[in-house]
Amino acid sequence: MKRIKLTVAYDGTNYSGWQIQPTAPTIEQVLDQAIEHITGERLHVTGASRTDAGVHAMGNVAVFDTESTIPGERWSYAINRFLPEDVCVQESREVKTDFHPRHCNTEKTYEYQVLNATFPNPKLRNYVWNVPGNLNIDTMREAASVLIGEHDFKSFCCVRTQVESTVRTVYSIEIEEQKCENLGLNQNDSSIGSDSDSLKRIIRFRIRGNGFLYNMVRIIAGTLIQVGKGQKSVKDVEEMLEAKNRCAAGQTAPPQGLTLMKIDYIDGDDAAV
Amino acid sequence: MKRIKLTVAYDGTNYSGWQIQPTAPTIEQVLDQAIEHITGERLHVTGASRTDAGVHAMGNVAVFDTESTIPGERWSYAINRFLPEDVCVQESREVKTDFHPRHCNTEKTYEYQVLNATFPNPKLRNYVWNVPGNLNIDTMREAASVLIGEHDFKSFCCVRTQVESTVRTVYSIEIEEQKCENLGLNQNDSSIGSDSDSLKRIIRFRIRGNGFLYNMVRIIAGTLIQVGKGQKSVKDVEEMLEAKNRCAAGQTAPPQGLTLMKIDYIDGDDAAV
Repeated sequence: MKRIKLTVAYDGTNYSGWQIQPTAPTIEQVLDQAIEHITGERLHVTGASRTDAGVHAMGNVAVFDTESTIPGERWSYAINRFLPEDVCVQESREVKTDFHPRHCNTEKTYEYQVLNATFPNPKLRNYVWNVPGNLNIDTMREAASVLIGEHDFKSFCCVRTQVESTVRTVYSIEIEEQKCENLGLNQNDSSIGSDSDSLKRIIRFRIRGNGFLYNMVRIIAGTLIQVGKGQKSVKDVEEMLEAKNRCAAGQTAPPQGLTLMKIDYIDGDDAAV
Repeated sequence: MKRIKLTVAYDGTNYSGWQIQPTAPTIEQVLDQAIEHITGERLHVTGASRTDAGVHAMGNVAVFDTESTIPGERWSYAINRFLPEDVCVQESREVKTDFHPRHCNTEKTYEYQVLNATFPNPKLRNYVWNVPGNLNIDTMREAASVLIGEHDFKSFCCVRTQVESTVRTVYSIEIEEQKCENLGLNQNDSSIGSDSDSLKRIIRFRIRGNGFLYNMVRIIAGTLIQVGKGQKSVKDVEEMLEAKNRCAAGQTAPPQGLTLMKIDYIDGDDAAV
């Protein structure tokens, strides 16, 4: 028996998230079906992160066990032949049979994208949260710095969460701004009337941590946008952390702006065998 | 009677191009319907560029005439209420009644996106041409420089084209490379096996000119990719231009990588009134 690790990318738009549900298509389901198609074995992939409906991934991780003789690195090619075009295995390898994608020390990287513009961008509609109006990036960066480090993030998780501890470590929150020129928008077109119309940029939050609670990245993104708008202050964010109460934090940003970028196994538990 | 100019963005994935067809949805059609819904007038928008099926736009231009008293700059908001989410007016203004979007001196900017990676990226699947393998960007830039300037681009247009002259001026072709880190891919992950697997980047052609023949940008992109692969040389591209024969040029790149970024009316014919 071999254990195969997959690094999986997907566009979550048309899925009800990762985890199998009786009546809606999920990422887990299309992976299971593709692999069963190849081996004829009944099997079930185990995922590292159960992303929500509408959330995307560039590098979620899944494992499965098989008796097949297909070499580890060939599985990506084999599985991709049977996947729909919105799911694609980016890498495969054989790993130790005791590697579990959720029970290891990891560093996870998420990206949350905001389009700061008056009107939506059709090509980006499934990949950004459209936020019109002025946003103060410097204040957002200051508020983000409050969240860096080991904290009890109880205020920043969905009340439905059932976990033993709500303490997590956030290593970094980078806030990057991509100006309009790359989007092909006429930021400097003086013929465009008001200031708000000419404000067109993508704001990208890149968040790294040792783990994230349910909805934590989306609540951080939603809270930071409220700070950018001046609806919350940096001091409010400090008080949110201290309150340890979901009612204290800001709004939950919508799912389509979120992408699980990668999961690094920092002790090398996922080394190829 | 007023003439209103619209700057229109769309995701062309689900459309049979710009121009109305009897049996397939088109951008022109959804704009006509949205505007008729507002005014009750029967009308028809006139577009600047009849993009093909699957091709996108950030800034195509259209005009229509109306008796409505809605101010020019409010039309964008009004029309967007009745458009599907893959089409969005980015700006509107009243222009002179003799402004015609196709009969003016213009500078058009197109972008063609290539994903240079072994496997497709699901989030980008409708917006890039996926080209695996090594591509020599320096040689592509050298070949692109051959095309700059005023030339007879007869070899670089679809044989179905019916135009008086195939002479056009290309002002610039910029070739930009966006490394994997921005895509969240582990380019530097030494555990990933072969070189080709770790090669993940977006290559973006940005082409400006006074006008483009049918399929010209896609044939330029397809030809430059063949140069990048070493299948064509810089000298071949020079000979293609001289041949003035479509059979001489390279392949036509697929539509989904192409976006019409903007149309500048260089004599100011589209000034607001």
